Amino acid sequence: MIKLAIIGGGDLGKVIAHLISELSEYKLVGFFDDYANAEQLVNVQGFEFPILGKTDDVSAQFEKGNFDQLLIGIGYHHFAVRQMMFERWKGKIPFANLIHPSAIVDKSFRMGEGNVVLAGCVLDKNVVIENNVLLNIGVTIAHDGHIDDHSFLGPSCVLAGFVNVGKRCFLGVGSVVIDNIKILDDVQLGGGALVIDDISRRGLYVGSPVRFLKS
Amino acid sequence: MIKLAIIGGGDLGKVIAHLISELSEYKLVGFFDDYANAEQLVNVQGFEFPILGKTDDVSAQFEKGNFDQLLIGIGYHHFAVRQMMFERWKGKIPFANLIHPSAIVDKSFRMGEGNVVLAGCVLDKNVVIENNVLLNIGVTIAHDGHIDDHSFLGPSCVLAGFVNVGKRCFLGVGSVVIDNIKILDDVQLGGGALVIDDISRRGLYVGSPVRFLKS
Amino acid sequence: MIKLAIIGGGDLGKVIAHLISELSEYKLVGFFDDYANAEQLVNVQGFEFPILGKTDDVSAQFEKGNFDQLLIGIGYHHFAVRQMMFERWKGKIPFANLIHPSAIVDKSFRMGEGNVVLAGCVLDKNVVIENNVLLNIGVTIAHDGHIDDHSFLGPSCVLAGFVNVGKRCFLGVGSVVIDNIKILDDVQLGGGALVIDDISRRGLYVGSPVRFLKS
Repeated sequence: MIKLAIIGGGDLGKVIAHLISELSEYKLVGFFDDYANAEQLVNVQGFEFPILGKTDDVSAQFEKGNFDQLLIGIGYHHFAVRQMMFERWKGKIPFANLIHPSAIVDKSFRMGEGNVVLAGCVLDKNVVIENNVLLNIGVTIAHDGHIDDHSFLGPSCVLAGFVNVGKRCFLGVGSVVIDNIKILDDVQLGGGALVIDDISRRGLYVGSPVRFLKS
Repeated sequence: MIKLAIIGGGDLGKVIAHLISELSEYKLVGFFDDYANAEQLVNVQGFEFPILGKTDDVSAQFEKGNFDQLLIGIGYHHFAVRQMMFERWKGKIPFANLIHPSAIVDKSFRMGEGNVVLAGCVLDKNVVIENNVLLNIGVTIAHDGHIDDHSFLGPSCVLAGFVNVGKRCFLGVGSVVIDNIKILDDVQLGGGALVIDDISRRGLYVGSPVRFLKS
Repeated sequence: MIKLAIIGGGDLGKVIAHLISELSEYKLVGFFDDYANAEQLVNVQGFEFPILGKTDDVSAQFEKGNFDQLLIGIGYHHFAVRQMMFERWKGKIPFANLIHPSAIVDKSFRMGEGNVVLAGCVLDKNVVIENNVLLNIGVTIAHDGHIDDHSFLGPSCVLAGFVNVGKRCFLGVGSVVIDNIKILDDVQLGGGALVIDDISRRGLYVGSPVRFLKS
């Protein structure tokens, strides 16, 4: 059984912890969190997990064999920290890839590491997600979609074929992106957004079809 | 095998009857319907089921052991009757909970009684539906969603995290609700509606994002 | 094992070829393509399949027993050719029906021939698709939906109950159609389109709700 630790014991960390409880090959040993102390316990659906330490303790605990793989539990409100934490240990400590058993994943799907795919996602032919990406429940990505590092896709987003999403993007619940669209880095889409043209400027976009709202 | 009876032999009653035919632990014995007579048969996908009587006959037939559990087959055009029928027997006769085998339901999901969950729904962590609720095909509810009594969610509605839906609400096909929204009782959403603010006044809302249309 | 041949070795042909690789009862023997020559090979996810000939060679190869069933791999940019090819062999050579194993298909579902249903679709009670129809990933069709010949539904389209879609229609990604709607032949819907009224004039429609854009 692979022992996992999560960076961050907040809401996202708990979502990941709950997913781990569905996966028989993994076992959660605890959380690292700079805003908690070692006596605290993190309650996940009635089960308690220890705070293993601060993020400065991660490497030492890994070397002691206290865990085997990491995941980043820092969400889309803190993309810079999310990225920084991932890069701090990338290449030094393995990151897990967690896929809910109900997800429908084509055999041609490829991904880097540190990714989380929640229940009911559908990932078609040649979809690629890079690293440290989270797909919330019911996300549908058609053939040849590509999602770059650290991005978050909200529940039931749907991307048609040949869509590229950049780094640190956030796609709100129920967003729709037509085929052959490129969305560059640091773009946020509001809930129910419809994207019918490339987006090449960072910022927040809302509407159907979307308009730029603010950076 | 649990013997079920349905109040109402119309379209919704037949949808529930068809779902029962997918569930090996249940058997439909017939319908109660105030607008049908005892000689009539209700045709469900080529199979015929008897009218067991009027709603005034429900309690006597239950006491005779003719059925074990009830379901309400009265739809969203008649919310008052739907509620009244449920409350008439609540606590006196058990109501069934029917979930299509293809639905993806987190182990933390909780519900009251008399609920129907159709094919392809995805219900995430800590979702709660109260009583006498119907989720049509493909409904997706993210973590900590809460649906109150008697409400109807149309096909492929999607609710982000921490969404509360009140009593006797109707959400049209493909509605999208962003996270942390509260929708009060007696709200109807048109098809494809997008909700980005709380709704605290009863009535019909349409658009993306929604505007109040009429009460 | 049923031997299949595909008319057209382009993008859609490859999508179908990839689906065949998921289905143990079928084996792809190759493509017919008027724009390729017999020495060419078609690469599908790293596997190479031969060009069996031009479309004028289809009947002779079928009579020799080189394949058992046909599929049309000509997409929605060429509806007239798509239809013509289907009708050329209809009644003379059997067409296959391919359904991805992850699709949730009610037992009452019925279809003609030459249809392709991709991953994650949900097809409810009494849905009918006629012939030579393609449902992309995640399409949801509620009870009593009807899709006529040659039409294409994009990823995660959702149709409420009693929706009729005509021949040679294209519904863009994430389209939503409310219940009891009739869409006549040769209608195209843009991505994220919302249809709340019948459409009786051919052409392209976009928006939420849709407006006529051009014929």
